[in-house]
Parts: sequence; structure tokens; C-alpha cells
Amino acid sequence: MPIYNAPTRDTRFVINEMLDLASYGNLPGFESATPDMIDTVVNEYGKFASEVLAPINQIGDQQGCTRHNDGSVTTPDGFKEAFDQYRESGWGTISQPEEFGGQGMPHVLGFVIEEFTATANQAFGMYPGLTTGAISALIAKGSPEQQEMYLPKMISGEWTGTMNLTEPHCGTDLGLIRTKAEPQADGSYAITGTKIFISAGEHDMADNIIHLVLAKTPGAPDSTKGISLFVVPKFIVDEDGNPGERNGVTCGSIEHKMGIHGNATCVMNYDDAKGWMVGEENKGLAAMFIMMNAARLGVGIQGLGQAEVAYQNAVAYALDRRQGRALTGPAEPEAKADPIFVHPDVRRMLMDGKAFTEGMRALCLWGALLVDLTHKAQTEEERAEADALIGLMTPVIKGYGTDKGYAIATDMQQVFGGHGYIEEWGMSQYVRDARIAQIYEGTNGIQAMDLCGRKLAQNGGAAVQAFFRMIGEEIAEAKGNETLAPMAEKLEKALNEQQAATMWFMQNAMQNPNHLGAGAHHYMHIMGIVTLGLMWLRMAKVATEALAGSPEDASFYETKLATARYYMDRFLPDAGALRHKLESGADSTMALGEEAFATAA
Amino acid sequence: MPIYNAPTRDTRFVINEMLDLASYGNLPGFESATPDMIDTVVNEYGKFASEVLAPINQIGDQQGCTRHNDGSVTTPDGFKEAFDQYRESGWGTISQPEEFGGQGMPHVLGFVIEEFTATANQAFGMYPGLTTGAISALIAKGSPEQQEMYLPKMISGEWTGTMNLTEPHCGTDLGLIRTKAEPQADGSYAITGTKIFISAGEHDMADNIIHLVLAKTPGAPDSTKGISLFVVPKFIVDEDGNPGERNGVTCGSIEHKMGIHGNATCVMNYDDAKGWMVGEENKGLAAMFIMMNAARLGVGIQGLGQAEVAYQNAVAYALDRRQGRALTGPAEPEAKADPIFVHPDVRRMLMDGKAFTEGMRALCLWGALLVDLTHKAQTEEERAEADALIGLMTPVIKGYGTDKGYAIATDMQQVFGGHGYIEEWGMSQYVRDARIAQIYEGTNGIQAMDLCGRKLAQNGGAAVQAFFRMIGEEIAEAKGNETLAPMAEKLEKALNEQQAATMWFMQNAMQNPNHLGAGAHHYMHIMGIVTLGLMWLRMAKVATEALAGSPEDASFYETKLATARYYMDRFLPDAGALRHKLESGADSTMALGEEAFATAA
Repeated sequence: MPIYNAPTRDTRFVINEMLDLASYGNLPGFESATPDMIDTVVNEYGKFASEVLAPINQIGDQQGCTRHNDGSVTTPDGFKEAFDQYRESGWGTISQPEEFGGQGMPHVLGFVIEEFTATANQAFGMYPGLTTGAISALIAKGSPEQQEMYLPKMISGEWTGTMNLTEPHCGTDLGLIRTKAEPQADGSYAITGTKIFISAGEHDMADNIIHLVLAKTPGAPDSTKGISLFVVPKFIVDEDGNPGERNGVTCGSIEHKMGIHGNATCVMNYDDAKGWMVGEENKGLAAMFIMMNAARLGVGIQGLGQAEVAYQNAVAYALDRRQGRALTGPAEPEAKADPIFVHPDVRRMLMDGKAFTEGMRALCLWGALLVDLTHKAQTEEERAEADALIGLMTPVIKGYGTDKGYAIATDMQQVFGGHGYIEEWGMSQYVRDARIAQIYEGTNGIQAMDLCGRKLAQNGGAAVQAFFRMIGEEIAEAKGNETLAPMAEKLEKALNEQQAATMWFMQNAMQNPNHLGAGAHHYMHIMGIVTLGLMWLRMAKVATEALAGSPEDASFYETKLATARYYMDRFLPDAGALRHKLESGADSTMALGEEAFATAA
Repeated sequence: MPIYNAPTRDTRFVINEMLDLASYGNLPGFESATPDMIDTVVNEYGKFASEVLAPINQIGDQQGCTRHNDGSVTTPDGFKEAFDQYRESGWGTISQPEEFGGQGMPHVLGFVIEEFTATANQAFGMYPGLTTGAISALIAKGSPEQQEMYLPKMISGEWTGTMNLTEPHCGTDLGLIRTKAEPQADGSYAITGTKIFISAGEHDMADNIIHLVLAKTPGAPDSTKGISLFVVPKFIVDEDGNPGERNGVTCGSIEHKMGIHGNATCVMNYDDAKGWMVGEENKGLAAMFIMMNAARLGVGIQGLGQAEVAYQNAVAYALDRRQGRALTGPAEPEAKADPIFVHPDVRRMLMDGKAFTEGMRALCLWGALLVDLTHKAQTEEERAEADALIGLMTPVIKGYGTDKGYAIATDMQQVFGGHGYIEEWGMSQYVRDARIAQIYEGTNGIQAMDLCGRKLAQNGGAAVQAFFRMIGEEIAEAKGNETLAPMAEKLEKALNEQQAATMWFMQNAMQNPNHLGAGAHHYMHIMGIVTLGLMWLRMAKVATEALAGSPEDASFYETKLATARYYMDRFLPDAGALRHKLESGADSTMALGEEAFATAA
């Protein structure tokens, strides 16, 4: 049976030592995030994820969700009970606002919970995960009445939420949506249409499901400027605030998917369902992006999660399975063969897993801190800076994080040889589950265009220039330390590649925007590589400082330094190759027309 | 429903124009492979693959194989009937020796059949595919009686074959096998043991199944030097050459796998089964490698196959699905959105698919020609040269071809967005099926060690030096042509990276073999990139020459040139990054011990 141990030590290292969360104690909400509180949340939730969520992950894959003839949906064995425990312990409330029953603590702690959940059981994690997205939209755009009606119970976990964007003919291009919202005399709207790929659209885990739905009012512009957002509860909330009359929204079917079988991916039919507008008419896209940005960070965390759990299992297998002998001579001569851990190619894969997951964890938690600073930093300038930086990082965390997360999960499966392909070992599920994260909440191609087409250019490139300054300063400082200097020099080289690629875009994309489109995916990867490099430089710096104090657990810090060196050796070189591809531009990419792609007989 | 059209034009281009098969007409068997015969085989088998095998591919995935209580196994609907047709048309006989009922034509044509089969229906293809491997071993090592008893019916397809190597505790390290072979008074052996992961181990498609089984005779050395090969028929062949008494070999269970559900992957229990030794005692490993080398090329073809069918479907989807607008302005202003084909990031993925599959097809067919020349070239020197070259190429075709095949299949699934994740669209199956090819017949890590640890060093590096000379000469020649020169220069740069990496191994691996092990996987990829570059240079040369004659289908050749340019722009740069990783050596890869990989609490 697959294992999962929450990486609590590493998480505390990032939060307490790398991010030094205590130094933000003067900001609202941070004061309650004391080191003791952080330890408690990390350790207790780690235990819950490992002991409650992980054991039902494979069951969820094997059983999937069942839709009954009445449209109701049953989740896999154990999911409902686990969600009951999650709700009762209040895990979903940690970083939500106190005025709606949350604990008001930093998003950094909310991200810890998201990571451990997504790692232990990605399909399960999507039920509270989508709820978090819907909560964000209601906090930002809901009326006070809507907030009061829905938020406390969504935050407590009594009710869950969904995001209804996609329709059969329209995913990325939301201007094409056809779902209609007809205004009614009582101020509500009658919502009619079909939405597909609705994660957690119907299930048996909560008393009500609050759907946030994009639809068009009559006469709305025929583009993304004509979309409005509506809240459509499964049960209309009665005067006492309880689920009342059943609304006209039903699950038409459940999709058969490659993975995340434990989550009900529904076709949702809206048939004159009662809905209420959230925010302004025709401004639904902005509200949608609030949900989406929260969701994209959550999806990036899923990339980390599946890589992490696959890595842990690969390590265990590599230490147990014996085949062949070390190239340098038998490591355990008394046994008939050595553990495959001794083979450099196996170790390469494990080190890739270790370097990616620890680097990505640091990036996600830093990203969470930026989200906090967006709201809570003391000055408007600091808030704007954080906002620009997390805007730049969001497509990188989502796009690079999930591309690499999938690749790492695949490599960890490879460590198992033939057993990795057999479902009972669990590695196949990690790969299949990881695969969706590259696709949903905006495919990684969309992430790349968001990064290169929007974020790079915003405010004359202020955000990326600030990023370059920040990393340049950290490299310069690190060069003054003999332990860190060799790493900093390698990172500087990769940074130079990114800067050159940025310059190439500036000089060529105006003349032909296809140059940008043909290189965007590569740019996103370059930036992911450089950003994880920055995380590793920061972790190496903290480790170097810690080691100077001869700490008790010196081996933890020495391991950090060794892994940082591996990262610089083995991840950074790709930045150069990607830059060369990018600089070949769109000419050869776009040279061929439709007919050239036909299979000639 | 997913589509597949056999790429007959491209196949004829490679065989007739790039390989110029007609120029080998003086060699035995090649004289019957006239252009007419080639056209007939390519077109007729292409039709069979597209019309008979492809339509049951998804059925095979959904139904899988069923084991009944009596140990019998039923294959998915349509598999038996399709194999009946395959057998009746004699497709399996094309490149088998005439003395055993084959048609004696070049392996090049046999490879065409393998490719189209593996592309249309990989799980189906494994039934005749494993048979081909078993036939190779019997041709090379079987006694005349064994050959007469088994080969005609295996070649005709009346019987199928299997390869039984792996045991629960032993896959790569065959020295660990425990299956016993006790000599009997009648000259046969009693085989007892358990084999796992036996593809096509039991099924309902043929009258007999001929298992080739590795086992140990009493007192055999406790290493790979103590392995012998046995032929163990499911039904013992009677005096008339027909299946007689049921032998003591049964299917204990079928594995639940990530993909290739249509193939029965069996646990095979041998309980005093009657077997006969093939070749000499304790020389089973050499016989096994004959099967294995044939199988490895076949697996490389599977990498091509799944990339190809995924690519064809991605092209169709990209031309059909409309989302968003071209970056350069609406391509079809009258429609509400453009086909996603207009987006550079989609085109990048499709061009990756096109450049890989056409390059890989050329490599596989050239590999097949080398196999032919190994046996049939006129001089011993030519035969030895071909043997060394295909020895070098086999791990590249298998390892690079399947790693990249999986990556391409994944990207083609990405083109579909959310629909790619839904099973009914078929893209998930291609990815799941492609995944096994990186694992079986020696994981790709083993391929990398075969390439770097054995093949590079053999005969003082003669094979790789010959490869460098060959490609160097072709580059030099191409530089004299203005169309080809820019491509040749880019390829030369990648070749230089490979040569530098080779030199680095020579200078460092003796001192520490882990330097070789930690870089082997990267080296295999560098060599794959360079070799496909050579294929593209060759194809570009042929296309340039053809265009000089103003041919009717000039667009075919212009497309080849454009795709060659794309390959040089977008595939070759990775060679440099891989070399840098390789040259970082084993130090950071092997720095950490077992305890550093534990998840600390």
C-alpha cells in the first residue's frame, strides 16, 4: 500500500527559517501565527492528511463516484466521513476572515493545508479546494447579504462551492458561453444552460452546494464583456438560513476520466434555476479571475503534491528492491543484490524528485506569503509590489509547477520498473491524477500566454524588472559567501538566459506577436527554473547560516546544501536550451498550413 | 471516435526515396521487394491497420482481458476475429525465412507492419509482437527439430509465442531467477516456478502458445551464467505436429495495469511443465538477448506509434475546435472564434509531433535496414559494420524513442484541453499505453547503461567513432548546398555536444564509474536528438533533390524541408543542456545517503 508522510520538518523550515514568518508579526492575522501555532497546525494537519486522507486515496481511484438515477452522487467509501472530520476540526477555516467564522491566520498556513491535502488525496482535496475558490469570489464581489447567507457555512465546511465556467463548446474562450440568465420580478435570475467539467458539482458530503455560474443576461454584449456571475445554490436558502427548496440544477452525468476518480466531475444542467447576480452585470469575468487566481495557485500545489507522494514512494521502493550491483562494487556483498538505490540513474531520478518538491514547496509558501502581503502589508506600495509579484508568479506556479510535477511523478513511477505500471502499487494513480493539473483552470499554454502576453508587459514590465532586481541582489550577496558563491554563479547564468529571452521578446514580439506565442511556453519554463533556483539559493543561505551555529540537526541543513548543489547542476542548464528554442521564433513553427498536417496516402 | 490513417506516403518516401531500397536489389530477399511490392504491402496493410485494428483499440482498453476460473483468458471483442484476418492474410510472414513458410522479404517491410499495428492498436500488436521475439530466438538457437516443430506455425500465426523472464523478485537482474528446470529421463525438463508480467501469456486467439522460459538447471551457477532457455508449449505437440496434451503451465491471474488493457499480462505458474532446452545449458542469457533485441526495436516502434496516433487526433481536433482569435488578428472573422490551430503554442505542439514522428519513422526503418544488412550484406565487413551500428542504435531507438513518444503523446493530449482528460476521446489511452514502452524490455535506465556502459566502449569505441564519421561526412556534404547548409550547421553543433559528452565520459568514467551512470540517461537523449537530426538532414537532402525536378507533389517535399528546419530549431538545443548536466558528473547526484531521503517529521 502506498505511503505518505507529511513533510512537516521541511514545511517548518520554509515557514520559520526561510520565510521567517515571525518577522511579519506586526501585520494583522500574523500575530496569532506564532511558532507554536505553526507547529501545531503543520503537525496536526500532517497527521490528519497522512492517517485519514492518504489511506482512502486509492479507494477513491478504484471506486470513483456513482451517479444514481435521481441525479444524486455518491462519493467513494470514506470520503464523507473524512470530510466530516475535516469540518469538525475546522481545517477549512484557518486562513479565512474572522468576520465570517474563519481564524484569520495567514494564507501561508492555508497553503500548508492545501498542500498536504492535495498530496494525500488530490480528488478529495478538490471538494474543499473549489469551495475556497468560490469563497474568494463571494468575499471580493458578493453583496453583504450574499456574504452573510453563504460564507459562514462555506467556510465552516457545512456547504461546499463550485465554479461553473466551461460549456461543451467553450472552455478557454469564455466569450462564447451560452448559458442564459433571465431577470425575474423578485430580483433573482432564471439560469438555463449546460456546464461541463464541473468538479465537485454534485456529491453527498455536504448539506448544500453553492454554485458560482457564469451566464449572460438578455442583450449582453457577445463577448467576455457580456458575462455576469451568479450564485445558484443547490437548495435555496430559507429564511432561517437553512437549505430549503430544491433548485433547478442537476447533475446530468459524471465524466469518465483518466484520473481524480474520487472527485465527481459533473455535467450540470441548469433549468430555470434560481440564481442571484454576484457583483455587477457584465463584470463576471473579473469576479471569475478572483476565483481563478486562487484556484491556479491551488493547482500548482497539486503539481507539487503528486510529485511529492510519488517521490516518497519511489524512495521507499528504491531502498527495498534489490537488483544488480553498484557500479563501484557490491554495496551489500552479503546479499544477492544491492538495493536499486545504489544505481546512479535511480539516484538521479530521486534527486530530481527531492530538488523539485522542496524547491516547489518553498515557492508555493513564498507565493502564499505574497498573497497575504497583497492584502495586509503596511503600505500601499508594499501591497502593490506583492500583488505584481504574485501576478507574475501565479502562471509560473501553475504552469511550470504542474508540467514538472507530472514529469517528476512519471519518473518516480519509472523507479518502480514494471511494478510502477501495475495499478495496485499506486504509482499509476499519481501520474494520472497529476495529469489534470496541466489542463484545468487554464491549460498551461494559457498560463504561458498569461505570463508572456499580459504579466510581462504590464506597467511597462515593472513586475519582471523588479523580479530581476530582487534576484540580482540576492545573487550578488551570495557571491560574497564561499559556500554560496558557486551556486549563485550558476543561477546568474540562468538568470542571464531569462533576461536575454525577455529582451528577445521585447525586440521581436511587437513586429510579430506569433514570436511571443511560439516562445511563451519555453519562457514560462525558463522562469520556473530560475525561480526555483532562487528558492534554492535562499534555502542554501539559511542552511549555511544555521550550520555556522553547529545545530543539533546539522544533517538536515547539510542535506539542503547538497540538494541545492544538485538543483544548480541539473535543473538550471535547461534554461539555455529553452532560450535557444524561443529565439528561433515563430517562423519554423508557423511555416506550415493546415494541408501540410494531413496524413498523406 | 479516435481516428487513424496509416502514413503510407511518408512510409514510401522513407523506404523508396530516403533508404533507396531498390539499390539493395542484389541482396537476398531484397529482389522481391520491388517498388510495386512495397506499395502493395504499405497500402494494403495500412488499410488493414486503419480499418480493422484501430476500431477495436478503444474497445480493448475499455473491456480488457478476462481470466476465467479454469485459467482461460478471453480477449476483448473483435481481437480474435482481427487476428484471424491477420493470420489469413499472412501479414506475419512477410520478413520471416522462406524455409519456415515466411516470404523472406526485408525486415524493412516487417517494420512497416509492426509500426502500423503498434499505432492502430498497441495491445493487439503485442500478440504477434511477442511471437516475433520468440521466433527470433528459435531461429538463432533452436535445434532443427525444434525449428521444424514450432516455427512454421508460429510464423503463420496459428500459434503465438511469449517471453518468460521476469519473476516477482527479479526483473532486470536475471541472475536472481528461481524457476527450476529438472532434467527428465526422456531428455525434456520439468519446469517449476512463477513468472510475472508475461505479455500475451494466455488468450483465446491461437491454438497453441509457445512459451520461451528462462530457468536454472540443478547446480547451475548462481548468476546470469547459470540461466538456460526452454521452450514450453501450452499444449505439447503430438506426433502429427498438432497441439496435444495440456502442459503444466497456467495463467494464475491477470494484472490490472495503467494501459494496454487489451493485452493479457499474466502471472504464469509453471508446475512440472514439460520443457525442452533451447541452445546450450547455461547460455540462456545470450538466447534471451536475441529475443530482447528484436523486442526492444519493437518497443521503440511503439513509442513512435502512440505519438503518431495521438498526433493525428490532435491535428483533427485543432482544426475543428474553435477558441479565441489568432494573435495576428481573426483568421476567420465570419466565425465567432478561430480554430485553435491558429495559436502558436498549439502549432508548436503539433510541429513537435510531426517532427518527432517523421524523424522517428525514418530512424526505425533505417534500423530495420541495418538489421537486414547484419544478415544479408555481401561482405563480412559490411555485416559487422551494420551489426555494430544497430547495436548502438537499439538502446537509442528503444530508450529515446519511447521517452519522447510518451512526451509527445502527452502534449497531443494537451491540445485537447479538458476533453483530453476524458476517456471517451481516446487521448488518455494513448498516453497510458505509451507509458509502458519506457518500462518493459529493459527500463530506459537500462537502455542508457546498455548504450553507455557496453555499446560505447565495445571494440575501443569503434561503433560510435564510425557513427561520428558517418554523420560528420553527411554534414560536410550538406554544407555545400545552400538549402541544407543552415540545417547542417545546427546539426554539427549538436554533434559537437555529443562528441564532447563522449570525451567527458572517456576522461572521467574510468576513475569513477558513477560518472557514467549519472550521465547515461542524458547521453542517450543527446544521441537520440543527434540521430533524429541526421534522419532529418537525410530527408531534407532527398526533398531538396526531388524539388529540383519540379515534381507534381512539390508540397510534400516543401513540407519535409519546413519540418526539418523546425526540428533543427526546436529539438537540437536540448543537446547542449543535456551535456552540461552530464558533465556535472556524479558528485551532486550521489552526495546524499539513504537517511537524507527520509521524510523528516
